[in-house]
Amino acid sequence: MKEIAGGVCAANGFSATGIHCGIRKSRQKNDLALIFSDRECSAAAVYTTNMIKAAPLLLTKEHLKNGMARAIAANSGIANACAPGGEENARRTCAAIADQLGIGDDEIIVNSTGVIGVPLPIENIEKAVGRLVSGLSSNGSDDAAQAIMTTDTVPKQAAVQAQIAGKTITVGGIAKGSGMIHPDMATMLAFLTTDAAISSEALQKALNESNRITYNRISVDGDTSTNDMAAILANGAAGNPQIEAESDEYRIFLDALSLVNGTLARMIARDGEGATRLVSCRVTGAGDEDSAEQLAKSVISSNLVKAAMFGADANWGRVICAMGYSKAQLDPETTDVAFASEKGSIDVCRAGAGLEFDEDLAKKILSCPEVQIIVNVNGGEFEAEAFGCDLTYDYVKINCGYRGEYRT
Amino acid sequence: MKEIAGGVCAANGFSATGIHCGIRKSRQKNDLALIFSDRECSAAAVYTTNMIKAAPLLLTKEHLKNGMARAIAANSGIANACAPGGEENARRTCAAIADQLGIGDDEIIVNSTGVIGVPLPIENIEKAVGRLVSGLSSNGSDDAAQAIMTTDTVPKQAAVQAQIAGKTITVGGIAKGSGMIHPDMATMLAFLTTDAAISSEALQKALNESNRITYNRISVDGDTSTNDMAAILANGAAGNPQIEAESDEYRIFLDALSLVNGTLARMIARDGEGATRLVSCRVTGAGDEDSAEQLAKSVISSNLVKAAMFGADANWGRVICAMGYSKAQLDPETTDVAFASEKGSIDVCRAGAGLEFDEDLAKKILSCPEVQIIVNVNGGEFEAEAFGCDLTYDYVKINCGYRGEYRT
Repeated sequence: MKEIAGGVCAANGFSATGIHCGIRKSRQKNDLALIFSDRECSAAAVYTTNMIKAAPLLLTKEHLKNGMARAIAANSGIANACAPGGEENARRTCAAIADQLGIGDDEIIVNSTGVIGVPLPIENIEKAVGRLVSGLSSNGSDDAAQAIMTTDTVPKQAAVQAQIAGKTITVGGIAKGSGMIHPDMATMLAFLTTDAAISSEALQKALNESNRITYNRISVDGDTSTNDMAAILANGAAGNPQIEAESDEYRIFLDALSLVNGTLARMIARDGEGATRLVSCRVTGAGDEDSAEQLAKSVISSNLVKAAMFGADANWGRVICAMGYSKAQLDPETTDVAFASEKGSIDVCRAGAGLEFDEDLAKKILSCPEVQIIVNVNGGEFEAEAFGCDLTYDYVKINCGYRGEYRT
Repeated sequence: MKEIAGGVCAANGFSATGIHCGIRKSRQKNDLALIFSDRECSAAAVYTTNMIKAAPLLLTKEHLKNGMARAIAANSGIANACAPGGEENARRTCAAIADQLGIGDDEIIVNSTGVIGVPLPIENIEKAVGRLVSGLSSNGSDDAAQAIMTTDTVPKQAAVQAQIAGKTITVGGIAKGSGMIHPDMATMLAFLTTDAAISSEALQKALNESNRITYNRISVDGDTSTNDMAAILANGAAGNPQIEAESDEYRIFLDALSLVNGTLARMIARDGEGATRLVSCRVTGAGDEDSAEQLAKSVISSNLVKAAMFGADANWGRVICAMGYSKAQLDPETTDVAFASEKGSIDVCRAGAGLEFDEDLAKKILSCPEVQIIVNVNGGEFEAEAFGCDLTYDYVKINCGYRGEYRT
């Protein structure tokens, strides 16, 4: 398996684009993205577990009932959630784009991201679809990735290639964060494409399985959004025999998909609102994988751990405390904690009690752009790793006046 | 029922004190508190639900098996959690103080609050007990309240009087916040005293009931501490016939206790780390009280809502979003949201959709020191209110280098 360039257009038969259509006031930031396959695709998606689901998510669910789609359209700036005319505006977006592409309305996966409660300026979208569709290009992944950004500071793309039954298949994708990130099913937006031939049933299964160990293991701020979605199109252009669930080929495909999703998930955590570093927590020695995951997620979700990480402060007591309230079983008497980064690693707690350690070395380790909290609970064979970021002044700054740019 | 001064010494027969014994380096901040009853007391406590419980909590549980106690001792600066010698140091603290007071070791409720993982300098405590006990005074509530403060900016005291069977009974208390506040059973420290005569069974029941609707409805940062405890001593000095559970007198006592606890709980939320305002969320029209509580707590716990409140930004979409992921039932189509404060109130969302509203008035309302988010889910008869604070630059500042003062 190898990582390649090209993002959501890396797989054969896909093109993409991103333009400014006037949802945002500022022309500096694109606000409408489109991804298109030159042929029919199996399609699958996972959605936020928030009880409040934005209108485009509900419409996408309806469109994906037959497991087929050909395009993904998404705008940034306004979430089209809890907004007057939400369903109608989502339908009109699909109709305008489908008409221009010459496909059915129900072949479009649609989503929006941005401020909740503000109506979508649908006329601006309708006026822009000609320009949008004519901009589609096999080099358009970067433009599309930029057009779905909200407070993200960098576009997020990844792609890998693998061999299945003698054919090279490619999986690629784009994603955006970077606030309201606390996945529970799916959080954030991630749009994936593949030229592998795979049944929609197997595709949905692979997306679910991969989602569980990638997007569902990151958190920026504990808030699960109303608009989160990860969706994938598989167009079969690679020419491999169709993959069905539970085969050896399915495993290879799942690994490729999880590599892309895992890369995008870490990019989202790294670019969390205001973040200065990626903070991961790896829990080993757990009695089962769910417990390991619960413990790791509780650590990277703790505001106090996150603030300590911003200060490069080796406050491991907060790590233990966060695991203690995670609801997973935990025996403090057998728990070890260490911190690690490119500058080395340092043991700070053994069997639940603090060790003397070199504070200067700890500071040096924790001042790196990627920091790992390593926990061994010494109670079993299972492990999990979760990804988050530090809590900084800039998180507060970004979020104390977020509606500013989008006020109607 | 009326509120009075005197805090934890307001009830007859109680004295208190607070001194600097050398757990903190700075002599500016007291670090050891003692509360004492001149006679035997019924006693009850509730403890953190964190799987990791500090050594003094485990010892207190042991001491309270018989439902009796006479003194409460607590230090700030170091939590005596996950620290070498924790149990022994908690026992030595009790032994030294009990010896000086001339009571049994097991008549002492003991707790610590501060940095996790650092050993308690027990010699400093042992050397100070003579000075501590000789400082006991019926005017000592303020000193005791100051000695348990960590990042709190103000001491927290409250007391009320009520009439029971022709006798005036008093309930008073002190408490401290102000980080790792996300109650789940009990969070934070609260020490209560009363001169009411009440059986320890009824006292425990009253503390549990009151805790559920006071301390368990506040959150500062979503982190449930290892050291949280609310404890109460009842010495019977008021001369009322002993209160048993479920009587009319029990109801009066419970109301008095909940008034004190509610006042202290709001003080903790208002003085949350870095907070500039108290933010409450009142949810009405719920199908049951638990759902109302879950919805309200989800709102005041959301980092995004809290950051918006810091910026006085009427971002009600985050309120809806936070209720949506609370796991409580919620129908967005029937949900109304308003903001209120001393400057008035403003409707911002009706039936799940945004209303046009006066942004300047909203800003004025949300700029007050106490702000209320009012939600009606229009689905039933039940309601609940939860209390939190805004998320500010200072929360990050306080928590990115918290261990500084206490490093060994």
